Formats: sequence, structure tokens, C-alpha cells
Amino acid sequence: MSEVAGRMSIQVGAHYLEKEPGGTGVLLSGVPGLLAGRVCVGGAAGGAAARLAMGIEAIVTVLDRSLPRLDELDCRYRAQLNTVYSTVDAVERHVADADLVIGSVLVSGAAAPKVVAEEMIKSMRPGSVVVDTAIDQGGCFETSRPTSHDDPFYTKHAVVHYCVTNMPGAVAQTSTFALNNATMPYTLKLAGLGWKKAFLSDPGFLEGLNVHERKATYEAIAEAVGMDYTPREEVL
Amino acid sequence: MSEVAGRMSIQVGAHYLEKEPGGTGVLLSGVPGLLAGRVCVGGAAGGAAARLAMGIEAIVTVLDRSLPRLDELDCRYRAQLNTVYSTVDAVERHVADADLVIGSVLVSGAAAPKVVAEEMIKSMRPGSVVVDTAIDQGGCFETSRPTSHDDPFYTKHAVVHYCVTNMPGAVAQTSTFALNNATMPYTLKLAGLGWKKAFLSDPGFLEGLNVHERKATYEAIAEAVGMDYTPREEVL
Amino acid sequence: MSEVAGRMSIQVGAHYLEKEPGGTGVLLSGVPGLLAGRVCVGGAAGGAAARLAMGIEAIVTVLDRSLPRLDELDCRYRAQLNTVYSTVDAVERHVADADLVIGSVLVSGAAAPKVVAEEMIKSMRPGSVVVDTAIDQGGCFETSRPTSHDDPFYTKHAVVHYCVTNMPGAVAQTSTFALNNATMPYTLKLAGLGWKKAFLSDPGFLEGLNVHERKATYEAIAEAVGMDYTPREEVL
Amino acid sequence: MSEVAGRMSIQVGAHYLEKEPGGTGVLLSGVPGLLAGRVCVGGAAGGAAARLAMGIEAIVTVLDRSLPRLDELDCRYRAQLNTVYSTVDAVERHVADADLVIGSVLVSGAAAPKVVAEEMIKSMRPGSVVVDTAIDQGGCFETSRPTSHDDPFYTKHAVVHYCVTNMPGAVAQTSTFALNNATMPYTLKLAGLGWKKAFLSDPGFLEGLNVHERKATYEAIAEAVGMDYTPREEVL
Amino acid sequence: MSEVAGRMSIQVGAHYLEKEPGGTGVLLSGVPGLLAGRVCVGGAAGGAAARLAMGIEAIVTVLDRSLPRLDELDCRYRAQLNTVYSTVDAVERHVADADLVIGSVLVSGAAAPKVVAEEMIKSMRPGSVVVDTAIDQGGCFETSRPTSHDDPFYTKHAVVHYCVTNMPGAVAQTSTFALNNATMPYTLKLAGLGWKKAFLSDPGFLEGLNVHERKATYEAIAEAVGMDYTPREEVL
Amino acid sequence: MSEVAGRMSIQVGAHYLEKEPGGTGVLLSGVPGLLAGRVCVGGAAGGAAARLAMGIEAIVTVLDRSLPRLDELDCRYRAQLNTVYSTVDAVERHVADADLVIGSVLVSGAAAPKVVAEEMIKSMRPGSVVVDTAIDQGGCFETSRPTSHDDPFYTKHAVVHYCVTNMPGAVAQTSTFALNNATMPYTLKLAGLGWKKAFLSDPGFLEGLNVHERKATYEAIAEAVGMDYTPREEVL
Repeated sequence: MSEVAGRMSIQVGAHYLEKEPGGTGVLLSGVPGLLAGRVCVGGAAGGAAARLAMGIEAIVTVLDRSLPRLDELDCRYRAQLNTVYSTVDAVERHVADADLVIGSVLVSGAAAPKVVAEEMIKSMRPGSVVVDTAIDQGGCFETSRPTSHDDPFYTKHAVVHYCVTNMPGAVAQTSTFALNNATMPYTLKLAGLGWKKAFLSDPGFLEGLNVHERKATYEAIAEAVGMDYTPREEVL
Repeated sequence: MSEVAGRMSIQVGAHYLEKEPGGTGVLLSGVPGLLAGRVCVGGAAGGAAARLAMGIEAIVTVLDRSLPRLDELDCRYRAQLNTVYSTVDAVERHVADADLVIGSVLVSGAAAPKVVAEEMIKSMRPGSVVVDTAIDQGGCFETSRPTSHDDPFYTKHAVVHYCVTNMPGAVAQTSTFALNNATMPYTLKLAGLGWKKAFLSDPGFLEGLNVHERKATYEAIAEAVGMDYTPREEVL
Repeated sequence: MSEVAGRMSIQVGAHYLEKEPGGTGVLLSGVPGLLAGRVCVGGAAGGAAARLAMGIEAIVTVLDRSLPRLDELDCRYRAQLNTVYSTVDAVERHVADADLVIGSVLVSGAAAPKVVAEEMIKSMRPGSVVVDTAIDQGGCFETSRPTSHDDPFYTKHAVVHYCVTNMPGAVAQTSTFALNNATMPYTLKLAGLGWKKAFLSDPGFLEGLNVHERKATYEAIAEAVGMDYTPREEVL
Repeated sequence: MSEVAGRMSIQVGAHYLEKEPGGTGVLLSGVPGLLAGRVCVGGAAGGAAARLAMGIEAIVTVLDRSLPRLDELDCRYRAQLNTVYSTVDAVERHVADADLVIGSVLVSGAAAPKVVAEEMIKSMRPGSVVVDTAIDQGGCFETSRPTSHDDPFYTKHAVVHYCVTNMPGAVAQTSTFALNNATMPYTLKLAGLGWKKAFLSDPGFLEGLNVHERKATYEAIAEAVGMDYTPREEVL
Repeated sequence: MSEVAGRMSIQVGAHYLEKEPGGTGVLLSGVPGLLAGRVCVGGAAGGAAARLAMGIEAIVTVLDRSLPRLDELDCRYRAQLNTVYSTVDAVERHVADADLVIGSVLVSGAAAPKVVAEEMIKSMRPGSVVVDTAIDQGGCFETSRPTSHDDPFYTKHAVVHYCVTNMPGAVAQTSTFALNNATMPYTLKLAGLGWKKAFLSDPGFLEGLNVHERKATYEAIAEAVGMDYTPREEVL
Repeated sequence: MSEVAGRMSIQVGAHYLEKEPGGTGVLLSGVPGLLAGRVCVGGAAGGAAARLAMGIEAIVTVLDRSLPRLDELDCRYRAQLNTVYSTVDAVERHVADADLVIGSVLVSGAAAPKVVAEEMIKSMRPGSVVVDTAIDQGGCFETSRPTSHDDPFYTKHAVVHYCVTNMPGAVAQTSTFALNNATMPYTLKLAGLGWKKAFLSDPGFLEGLNVHERKATYEAIAEAVGMDYTPREEVL
């Protein structure tokens, strides 16, 4: 689903930059003779967002703390995108300069860290847009609060915030099939073996066990909600 | 401005394919393991639209009657897009199969021909989207009627129609600068020479003269509004 | 060698689509204004086949059950190919629609599963072509039977089948050098250490031991021929 | 049709490089760790052939006497191909070094010049392949003589020659539709206006008039067959 | 030769950005995690310079007054470069921000206009580099003065200036062959026909006649040196 | 830092191929109509060098003994580069034919093997250039000896050798920031935990321990300097 959200974030961002919903009226792709909009993508799930932003010919910068990941992106896309090692200073400069900022989940399962502080949001041009695809895990902008498809955005410090908690719901047809593809093998196994055998026979399954008989078996969740952590192998 | 409208048409189309405004809920770019949406682009101004649609990894087909133009696109974009010589039969098949159809101006200055008939619109899947960037010249879909940014779309035969007459207005910042770039040299000349001298000294200017002293000096317009045509050189 | 067979499969497929050997007379690369031929590639060894099919500007769809693999292809080739999660339903639809189907090995060492059923072959257009690069391990089409370079193809249900068991033999010069490159390090080690020491010192070598003193030491082979399996470490 | 022949020439060349029909057994696309085959393309109609040869990852050199054309190819394809100004010396060196040479028409309508001399053919490696897509106009290799789809190739100086006069016939389905697309507008005009009016109203038509009332109205043909040349305008 | 100078300008610029010759010590291509250097290219001969700058993964901006030319670059290179309509304001901003500025000839034959004023050079970061490939026609930076291969650069306002008048001389082997390719057809004609006949038979030749019997026959030169202009046709 | 050296090696190589410093006067990128220069890249750190060499449109060949690595490069860059399995014979042929040879480290930590023998250097064209980015570990050309930024190159057997031991020093600004990005996380940990705890808590740290209390704890170094090897875990 983070794949769907990542791709959607660019079309959502492009839409909210239009005048009607309150954006600056910048066309993300630019036109010949005029600089394209600047898109700043952060977080481990940002690959697809970055690729689509390049695809519409925006000026794309990926911020990340993993040098191997930045190297991989750099090898693959060459002059089409900029890679920047993510320090507080770098985030500050690139967010302030961006037309659109896409934030994604950094640590799966854990509450997302607030990478973009409120002060950084204030430094953005009025009518700029931020899309928080990590909102399901608390959001990665300090100014994010969950919204819904009925009322998808709000404006804070003159910056349009799109923080819908279930982004893939907007493209339900694609999301449903994508989810099916990802879960079908597990469903078949579950149906054939029963849950316990299925969990014990397949480490991929076992990794999905977060809580069992009041015991937190996923370390990141245990930490986030203040429970003791019990290894999965012990509870089954 | 057709450059702005062409590029905007893709982000508009992607947006209206979402569930909320009535679309099918298809994500135009697809996800790994799932076919991307199909975009069908027609008309001479469709180059930028096609390029951006490729950029977001949709399945793109360009329909055109100019083989040299299709050859040029084919040389340039290779496996990234399909080119199809535009016959009635080809338009029928590709429109029926498309998630998004972008129609653009075919003959500059003249009323746009109705390339896509009402029957073809009926053959599309419910929730599909059409964007008519030729609406300023009458539109190229038989079912098009002008809309505005306040009320940008309507649904006919279960197909979402986006036919805003002044599309570039939605990205006013980009459009204003783009227009400045395109018109500045003419403005400077006009200011320096006066209109008549300017027109006589620069064929690019002269070509812009459509009507003068009640005489239609642009052939396509003369034909469209039923006036006699007078060559520009004669009226100045 | 699967690399050679994968690449060859496209030029073989393009050749048999010509009229003379019984094909539909479709030019795989299309021409401007005409849709290119459709190539459907399945199986883990299909990467090079897919890449060359894109290279000649065919419409390429890769079917696979590994989402990470589809994601990797999608990141790399963007709008140039389609990726589809391989379900029975998806295989049915894409095979029926293809001009050329390339099947490759799915499970190394084991008999290839019959992914494409006879009914699917019947659903293809007359003169379409299938190339079975997994024929050395039994083939992955239900209608495949081994052929040779002397008599390389046959027609069944009006579909041209190319199932040469030793495809790389057709490009012997390339295959010989490729094989040398891949085996040279092992040959040198074998010559220097004797076979037993060589096997014990290098896990890459050991993995190549399939049968020893009448004991099957490769699980997939043991299963395929109905013998008991003995771990390699035990027999040396 | 030269578009069809150009694209076909690569799949034909790849096929005849296989061992069975007498080729060197070189896989044109190479494999990782092994140089790909060398393709040398000459003549104005060689663009599509060059592009497809790049597409299958061969080492491609285009020889041409037009610097603007070479510049255009260089801008477009960058590191993917080599461009060489065509002198006798350059042709000699590149033909001798090639696995596959594609020759195409240089002067439309006139007999093709014999760009590749018999001595150059002799200098090629045994089993190399030449494809003469200009054979309909006499051929551009000194050793070319017309062949047919029944008996498509012969070997001279140990070099495989493919010189089928009607190459597009092999992909009849594609060729028929391509021809329709190209001729339909003329056919409609011819049917509507009658031949003489049609010719006089459309310079594109008029250019197609080669001989009328025993007068050669196309300069290149007049020269080639030794007739006097009469301008088209005079005979109608 | 402008093709040679354009390509050379990037390797020259990259070299002078190193510490030793006085540059800022910026690696033009950047590394993963660090923004690449900014290259600003202006003038009609800047195409090859821009392409090579993209090739080494710099951040490239092309400034030009021709919208069709910017559109062509934009279509071709998509997200790899930025195109900016060249106004005084735009030149100011982009030069100030650049690590390397490449200036090329704008009007062939005429003295190059001073597009980059001294104040703009002052605004650049110390150690930045400018390369003036228009120096043979007077240069396009206000601070340019001709240099030679013996003493190729000087520093003014802390900016390294490379203004060698005969840049192609540094790559004499390539330049000689390139010149041969470009001039050979003219040399052969000149030798065969004598100069006057050659000039009269070939408009390409005639265009090369700048001065004849003390009469300036090239308008731009006449203007530049203050002579009366005589059309070429009149003097022969 | 090997990333910086790899990228620098191309601009250094291009520079020394100019006439002034003694090169052949070949422009590495070629021009339309003239073959580009040939660049031969070897060693595990050659990826970025190869990519930039392609970027300036040189003819690039990567020699390597790892088939998976060559396969990866081939998948990624397709017709833009050649991959060759590195045998003594292959190195001989490609070095002799190259304008520029880039050698990089093969085994991290150990003395670099002398992959290019003196005889091979002798076989190169006079004025060709070699860049040894492995010089810090002894160099990978038999004729390499360390040089400095003050006196960066020497000529042996008429071949220009660039063997500066601290290449990244030339682009100090880029190198400093790159080093910061790579070391910052370790520095912070070291400051927070003290060295021993830091080493014990982080395997990435521990791997950096080469010598401790007169004991060599890095196997490759122990071997290179003739000391006994003690596993890191034992000394802490």
C-alpha cells in the first residue's frame, strides 16, 4: 500500500498546487523556458514518488540517511534527480525551497519521527503543499493531523496539508487488486493449514504476528505502546 | 498556453480518475504487478501530454494522421509509447479501451472537428475520464460543453468530462510567466514601433492579425464564421 | 546459458512470426502508426528476453509471482514494459492476446511446471509463436515437445512452437566463450586441487554435485526421479 | 516500406548469423562479459535499423555523408551508437570489422550506388552477414543479386547475402496496414477528384508521377534509364 | 569547430573547478548524498555542452531566447535539464548561482553580444569558472579577454576565466579529422571546378564568401567592421 | 572517497588527453562523424567512472571477473557500454586499444594486484593516458608510482600516468562534505559511547579496527605486512 500512496502523492501534490484548492498556482512540470516545480521527497518509501516526480519533469531531490540507498538512486537515475544526505540543516534548506514535500514512513511499525519541524513548515512559500504518507503511523511533519477523503486537506501556516489516513482508498480499484496480489499466497496458506501451522511453517507469516495473548511480539510496537516485548517463537 | 493545457491534462485526468470526483478509482501509474491505466492522446498539441503520461508510467497511445509526426514520436520514445494512425476505426477501439482520453486542437484557429463521437463516449467504462483541451475552439468530443474552474466537470454517459475553457488559469503563476516569455518580444516591438509598423516589419506579427476593419484576414476564421477572406497584406 | 537462450528467444520469435515459417506476418517492432507486436514473458529467467523485446520496441508484459522482482523491473524500465502478477487468470488473458510468448525456467533443477495449459494455446491467434526455453527441464507449455536445430519447430493448434533443447548451440561462438567465462574459475580449481578437495573447499562447487555413488544429493532431482535424497555433506 | 525493411533487416541479420543458415554463430546482443556483435548501418533509410540494433544491445556504427544527420543521431542516442562520416576508407575499415552490415537506399528513385566494393566483402570474417535493403533499386553492395522469399540468401566470399527484393512481404500483415495508412489519403483524393485533378491539386501527388505519355518526368529515373527529362508541370 | 569547443568546455570547466588551478574544489558530478555542481549554458552553440554536462550528472540550466529551441531540448532531455527563457533578470540569477558558466556564440559572423555583465561575474562565488567559447568573436562575458593554450586562464573578481581563442587546438587529432569531414566535399568541388564556378554552383559555398575585391559580402561582418554591404551575387 | 576518485578519474583522463600535458589530442566525447575515445575501466570501484564516461559519450568497456556484476551493469546501461570478462588476454587487447585506462581497487585493504603489466602499457598508443585510483594501495599498473597534486603526472613508455595518491584532495569541498556524510553517524556514536563501547555495540565500527595493541585484527592487512592475524573479538 505504501507503493500506492507513494505514487498517488505526486498526483495529489500536483492537484493541490493548483489555485482552486489554495495552492500557489505552480504547474509541477513547468513549461519550456520556465523552471519546473521543486519536489522534495524523504523517507524509505519515497522511491516511487521520486520516480513519478521525475516522470512529470519536476526538479526532484531525495533526502535520506542511507548512503547505499542514495547511491542506488544516483546510479539508476543519473542527471534526473538530486540525492542529498539528510541532516537537519539539509532538510531545512530543501523544505524551505520546495513547492511540494512528500514525507514517507521511515521505520516500519514504529511511530514515524517528526522529521519536518513546525518552523520548517513556516519557512515555506505560501500555497506550497505537503503530503504526509506516514500519517497512519503518526505522520512525519510536526504540523500533520489526520484527514479523510471527505475533507482531505487543511491549510496551516499558509501551507496546504494533505494527510488522508487511507490514501489508497481514493484509487480503490488499483488498491484492491494490488492488495490481492500481495496477500493471496498468505490467504491460500492460511486456508490450507490453519493459522498456527501457517505461522510456524513460514517466517514471512510469523513476522506479521504483532500481538498474541496480550503479549507484544513485535519489538517496535512494544516500544511504541509501552509493553514488554516477547519474541514470537516463545508465544506459539 | 496549449503547452500548459497539455501538461495539466494529465494531472487533471489522474485526479478525476480517483473515487471522490466520480472516477473508476484507477491509479494511472499502476503498481508493480498490475497494469497501469491506459491514456489515449489525440491532436497536434498532444506531445507534452503524451510525454507526461509516459512519465507517470501509464500505457500511452498517440493517435494522429501525420505519419512524419508519429515517426518522430516513435524515434524519440521507442518502447515507451504506442503510435497509431488515426482512422475512425482506430479511434473507436482506443477510446473504448482507455481510462483517460485527452483531446487537443487539430487545426489552429478553426473550430475543432468532433473527432470523438457520442457513441464512442458511451462505449467507455463507467468512471473513465475525458479532458478536452480544445474546448476553447468548440471542443473535440461530441459530448463536450464548456465548464469553469468553479464547476469544472460533469458526468455524461457515466464518463467524467473535464472541459474547463481556461485551463491554464488553474496554474496562474506558471501560465503568467510562460505567457510573458512568449509575448515579451512582441510587446517590446509593439511599444517601440507602433502597431502598423510592427505588423509590417515582422511576419510573425502579421500572422496574428485575424480581423481588421471588419475584414477577416485569417482564412480558417473566415471560413468558421462565414465571412469572406481578405489576405492580410491587402488590408494594411 | 539461460542468458543466451533468453536473448535468442526474441530473435527466434521475431523470425517465426514471419510468413515463410508459418507465422502471422507481424513485424514484432511495428512501424510508426501501427501497434507493435505483443510479447508475453514468464519465468525467472525472462529478464534478458524482456529487455531485448523492449529494445525492438515490442509491447512487453512480464508475468511473475515475485512482487519484489516485478518492482525491480518496474523501477528500472518504467513506461517501457508492463508487469503483471501471475495468476491463472492473468496468464490466460495475456497469452490469448500475445503474438509471442516466451516461457522460461521457474525452479532450477526441478521439472518445469506447465504454466501454460493446452486450452490457453488454443486461444491464441493462428500463426502466433511460443518459445519454450525451459524445454531442457520438460518445458513450461503443456503442448511443448523437444525439437532440434535440424527441425526446430512444429505447429500445434495453429501456433508455431519453437522448443529446441539446446538453443545456445545456434550461436555456438558466443555460447562457447560465455561458458568458458562462467566455468574457467572452477576448471582451474579442479585441475589444481583434484575433485574431492575442490568440492570440499568451495560451496559453489559442492552445490553442483547432483548424484554421487548412486545417491541423489540434489533434493529437486531426487524428487523428480523418485530417489531418496542424501545431503551432499554425507556422501563426501 | 523502407521503414519495414529497415526494422526487418536487424531480425533477418540476427537470424542468419546463427549456425544453421551458415552464420558465424555470433549472438548479436552478446551476453554479459562478452562483446556484442558489431552492426554497421549505411544509407539514408538506416535510422530504424540502427535504433533496433541498439535496442538489442549490439555495437552499432552509422556511416553517413550528412553531418547534420549524424549530429541528430548523436544528440538523440548519445553513448548508444557511433557515428562515422562515410569516406571510402571508413567504409573499408568498418565493413571489415562488422558481423552484420545493413545497406539502404541513398538516392531515392535512382539506381543505388555500389558503396561496398567486392574487395570489402572479401575482407569480412567468414560467416558474417550483409543485408541489402536497396536491392529493389539495384543494391548497394557490389556482390548483391536479387533473391526471393523462397530462396532468400546465398553465400559469396563466405559472407551470407540476404537480398530479398520484397522484404516487407515476409511481414505481410504489418506491411499491408502500414501501406494502407500511408496511401489512404491519396486513394481517397484520387477517388474523389479523378487522377488529373488530384495530381494538379496536390504537390505530394504530383511528385509521384514518374512517367507520362512516354515522357520521363522524374529526373533521377530519366538519368538511370537514359531518357530525356521533362518537368511534370509540362506534361499535364 | 563550435561542436568541439562546446564539448571541450565541460571538461575544461570541470578541470578548472579543481583546487590546483584556483577553483572552488567542487566536483561537477557531485557524489551520492551531495548536490552536483550547477552548470549554466547560454547561446545557440550550447547544445553539446549541455548534453555532456548532463552526462556527468551536473545540474544543468540552458538559457536561451528561442522558445522552439527550449521546447526541443525539453522534449528530448525531460527531467535531465532545466530550460529558462533568457531575460536579463534570469541571466543574473542563474549566473550568480552557478559553479560553471559556458557562453557560446549567439549570432554567427557578428561580434558576440556581452550577455554576462561584469556585475554578474562579481556576484559569483569565488573560485567559480566561466568558459567563453565565443571569444573568437569578441567573447560574450564583459570580463573576457583572449588567452592562449600556453597561458589559458586568468582570475578576475575571484572567478576563473578560460578564454582560449583556439580551443579545438587542444584536441588537435579530433579537430583535424572533424574539420576534414566538414570541408572535404567543398575541397573536392573547389579542386574540380575552380573557385568561381564552385561558388556559383553551390549556395553553400557562396554563403562562405565574406569579402571580395574589397567589398564586404556578408552583412553581419559589414556591420561589425563598418563597411558597406554588397550582396554576393553582385560581386561575382 | 573511492566514489570521488572514480568520478574524478574521467575528468582527469579527459584533461590529460589534451595536447598541452602530453596527450594524443583526442577529445574523449568525439564529435558527430568521428568515433569517440575508448575508455577501459577495471576494478570493483569502477562503476561511477564507467557511468561518467558513458555520460560524455565515450566508448566504454568494463573489465571485471564477477559475472553478476557485469550482468547488473549490462541490465542497467544496455547499449551504452560493453562488459568483458577479465582474462589476461582480454586485458591485453582492451588496454592496447584504449585512449584512457582507469584502474581501481580490486581487494579492499590488501595491496592492489598489478593487473596491467608493463608490456601492456608499452603496447598503448603514444599519448594515451592511464589513471591509477588504486595507487594508495600500491597501484594496479606495473608502471605506477605515487605522484602528488604539485606534480601530478609523468610519462613512461610515452603513456601519461596520473597516480596522485590523494585524488579527492583536488575537489576538497566536495570531498569534505562527502566524508562528513559518511562518518557523521560514527562520530556521534564515538562521542556518545566512548570508543570501546562504540566498537562493541556496532559491527560496522568493529570492522574498522585494523590494529590494536600491536595485534593485526584485519586479515588482509596482516597478510600484507607479514603479521599474525588476531580476530577482532579476541582483542577487545
